[in-house]
Amino acid sequence: MGFFDDHRDLLVQALQAARSRGYWSAFPEIPSGKIYGETARADGEAAFATLLDRPFEIDQPANGRVGREVSPLGKPLGITYPKSEPAALIAAARNAGGAWAAASVEERVGVALEMLARINRQSFLFGNAVMHTSGQAFPMAFQAGGPHAQDRGLEAVAYAYDEMTRVPRQARWEKPQGKSPPLLLDKAYRIVPRGIALVIACATFPTWNSYPGLFASLVTGNAVIVKPHPQAILPLALTVRIGREVLREAGFDPNVLLLAADEPDAPVTKELALDPAVGIVDFTGSPVFGRWLRENVRHAVLFTEEAGVNSVVIESTDDFGGMCRNLAFSLSLYSGQMCTAPQNIYVPRGGIDTDEGHKSFDEVAAGIAGAIDDLLSDRARAENVLGAIQSEETLKRIEAARRLGRIVRDSSPVDGAGGARTATPLIVAVDAADEHAYLEERFGPISFVIAVATAEEAIERAARSAKEKGAITAALYSTRETLIDRASEVFARAGVALSVNLTGAIYVNQSAAFSDYHVTGANPAGTACLTDSAFVANRFHIATMRRPMAA
Amino acid sequence: MGFFDDHRDLLVQALQAARSRGYWSAFPEIPSGKIYGETARADGEAAFATLLDRPFEIDQPANGRVGREVSPLGKPLGITYPKSEPAALIAAARNAGGAWAAASVEERVGVALEMLARINRQSFLFGNAVMHTSGQAFPMAFQAGGPHAQDRGLEAVAYAYDEMTRVPRQARWEKPQGKSPPLLLDKAYRIVPRGIALVIACATFPTWNSYPGLFASLVTGNAVIVKPHPQAILPLALTVRIGREVLREAGFDPNVLLLAADEPDAPVTKELALDPAVGIVDFTGSPVFGRWLRENVRHAVLFTEEAGVNSVVIESTDDFGGMCRNLAFSLSLYSGQMCTAPQNIYVPRGGIDTDEGHKSFDEVAAGIAGAIDDLLSDRARAENVLGAIQSEETLKRIEAARRLGRIVRDSSPVDGAGGARTATPLIVAVDAADEHAYLEERFGPISFVIAVATAEEAIERAARSAKEKGAITAALYSTRETLIDRASEVFARAGVALSVNLTGAIYVNQSAAFSDYHVTGANPAGTACLTDSAFVANRFHIATMRRPMAA
Repeated sequence: MGFFDDHRDLLVQALQAARSRGYWSAFPEIPSGKIYGETARADGEAAFATLLDRPFEIDQPANGRVGREVSPLGKPLGITYPKSEPAALIAAARNAGGAWAAASVEERVGVALEMLARINRQSFLFGNAVMHTSGQAFPMAFQAGGPHAQDRGLEAVAYAYDEMTRVPRQARWEKPQGKSPPLLLDKAYRIVPRGIALVIACATFPTWNSYPGLFASLVTGNAVIVKPHPQAILPLALTVRIGREVLREAGFDPNVLLLAADEPDAPVTKELALDPAVGIVDFTGSPVFGRWLRENVRHAVLFTEEAGVNSVVIESTDDFGGMCRNLAFSLSLYSGQMCTAPQNIYVPRGGIDTDEGHKSFDEVAAGIAGAIDDLLSDRARAENVLGAIQSEETLKRIEAARRLGRIVRDSSPVDGAGGARTATPLIVAVDAADEHAYLEERFGPISFVIAVATAEEAIERAARSAKEKGAITAALYSTRETLIDRASEVFARAGVALSVNLTGAIYVNQSAAFSDYHVTGANPAGTACLTDSAFVANRFHIATMRRPMAA
Repeated sequence: MGFFDDHRDLLVQALQAARSRGYWSAFPEIPSGKIYGETARADGEAAFATLLDRPFEIDQPANGRVGREVSPLGKPLGITYPKSEPAALIAAARNAGGAWAAASVEERVGVALEMLARINRQSFLFGNAVMHTSGQAFPMAFQAGGPHAQDRGLEAVAYAYDEMTRVPRQARWEKPQGKSPPLLLDKAYRIVPRGIALVIACATFPTWNSYPGLFASLVTGNAVIVKPHPQAILPLALTVRIGREVLREAGFDPNVLLLAADEPDAPVTKELALDPAVGIVDFTGSPVFGRWLRENVRHAVLFTEEAGVNSVVIESTDDFGGMCRNLAFSLSLYSGQMCTAPQNIYVPRGGIDTDEGHKSFDEVAAGIAGAIDDLLSDRARAENVLGAIQSEETLKRIEAARRLGRIVRDSSPVDGAGGARTATPLIVAVDAADEHAYLEERFGPISFVIAVATAEEAIERAARSAKEKGAITAALYSTRETLIDRASEVFARAGVALSVNLTGAIYVNQSAAFSDYHVTGANPAGTACLTDSAFVANRFHIATMRRPMAA
């Protein structure tokens, strides 16, 4: 019970935070030497450099090496990972899973919390690993790939712990029989895992999006096979290696946690997902593969985050400058490669009322475009906000999007970014009728300013597109409380998280663990929410044993 | 808030009972005049008689009448119900659903608890309605169709209430910013239903199996369409009529709860299940239709209870007589037409040790058969235990099963049962190798005594058949604690509830609300458990709205 006792206070705080949902964070997001140690930054960079151009060792069943990651900043990482056949991974997970399933809730939760604590101490290394796979600039790679991901993992552990400990281990069942002696049974309940859990991660947020499913499945007793995106293996290889170290120290077979690295031309995901021993699949990625999983994974519980078309509706504002700056940042952050980034900005054809007087449709579009130019005018700041483009495909999407309407702000590489793959935001103006242009997800720094008759029409269109195409976030700018109420109701029904009148240093893209429910599961953007009870409660079942009471 | 306040104490007790899982029941199971009123029995019979041979009125959208129920006791009921087109039901549910979704959790829970209270007061009427549709004898029809079903409904309400009230309505999010003022957001959370819920009920336990899904969907804000089995409409028509009365009194559109009655040659279930407005489907019935639902219902959350092959493993006993009597009752109760009834009784070829000395395989089989003969030797008792056979198909299955092995005890109609369709238990002896005989569900009073080498082999076979064919219950008779431990673990992993050494007045078929988890969702017997968190948590989603704090 060592690890559990070590982290018990943190768990209690996490449980409370998940209920009250005010601001709370377990893992400091500031990349500061005062918190992480004076030499942490340099140590993290050095540790990352040491990993390059050599085999990354994990002592799991393997018969070769794989790995061809290329940093979006330009350089191949040169790292290879153990190549493990799906059947070997399944067999190893199955062997390791028995004792893990039989361990107490406290033992498993203790192991998970210790993993998170050790991962946290290496946050600078994770920041470098996430930066050189996702293309995020370092400040974001540190935060989102480090402490924020760890917070999301902890949140899932807390939810799972809560659900499992709602079930008593035993009960005495005593049924009165009038004047006769009561009927007496001893009952015992046990938490039984679903089987092996497969976690399929993405390239843009390799840790943030995978930790909730990984840790939820792990603490509910399932052995976990982590299948990273072939371009973002390193952050999860580090995670698995740390996890195996903790498992071993706690006396478990480290094969409770395994890495399934592969290369784009020899993918192993489908074979793993179809294995009947797999009882849970968590997936973050494209709707094309999401659909394949939804159609083919019948034997396992499936949690997906796929894609969406996020909307902004602008009706009026009492801070035009703040609104434009806020949206400029949301559109620029990590070059729009966030599942929460806005794509479709609806503006009434007749313009809007603002604190700077009436602004025409074109003036609103120009205001946002101008705020982007201002934000990116400083090259260092531009690099820190934009980061790099994770996938070559995104550059092709930008090129195609240029032809979809009138270019309000063109995309260009960042000057002096060297070998990095970069692109500033493209904004295209279209009419609401041009649905072919804006009603599909165009992942990357691509957005549309869409002319509509009224804000009410915009809300209806945005909600309908959420229901049909999926959406995770929406933003509204309005000084009319009745419109805000209406939008709250409509977007809630469409399964979209709504942010209203953000003009300062909070952005629609941001989703805070313990407070914001990320994805609802109620539209095609995904089938699961990070994190609610439904995300954890189905990862185990409850088995009852009953017998007459011992005399 | 009237109804909620009326029943608040009951709800609090239900929440506590669901956590402690000792014996607790809200609705008295004894059909006594002292509890239900001195004239309750006669009133229930009279009320039932009044319903026969005439239209049953429900004021919902309809364009004709349907209904051709025939009592398994022999007489057509002669009752017709409103015929409502699926599209009309969906439209009515959708119209009614908006205000229901917008109501507070307390309003909805109050309405549900009042429905259950009024249903409870009519338990004698429900007993008659369930008897004349399912074929259960009155004592069981009263208990299982009345108070026990009501308890299961209340249990689902309590779980759903618990999950919904874990989410605060609002939160203040205050993020420190060092020496700068904190970032401040107001957040509001809302519970949003999935859409319209469809509840597809079965003919054998029309209320017990449908109330959990019905009430869980209702209180989480979904309008509910109840689709009864065409041979067991009446108990659910009564439920819907009472429910609509309460809804109307509480100021809601009664179309929040609708009946979709149909006839066998013009079924409406598939059309309803495929409607994109349907967000939840609960189903109890055959694996054939269950499979169709699993393959075709992609747009909705699906909860099923299908079928299973339940096993008994006999290794040794210190109460041979008690064991035989206990199993005799389990095999005879409602003529084996329970999803929890045993089918496969594994006995070592070499016999077993008992308090009466060693018993050979044949002596064990004869002991159980003899105990059935004793139990059924009194005609009144036989009728009260066996009830009638719900479906003609079951008689055909008995006929076919006679040829599958050596008949240990033959099935026959009950003497003097008049026009009722009856059949006593058939027991067939087979060898473990005859898997074609016993490894599929043969619903009804059909069981196999199966010769195995050892009890260990039997446990492995029973667990494997549970994993492959589904199973809800298992029973073990053994005086060896190590074998009991082993069986507990193996059956838990197979997703089966295990009863050990039942020799008295508790039977493996029985599943008590608030204590026994009915079905695990972990084998093909069904995808859901009555009731755990997973059964309720996914019937709604949580929508977040956030905005900078008002000054």
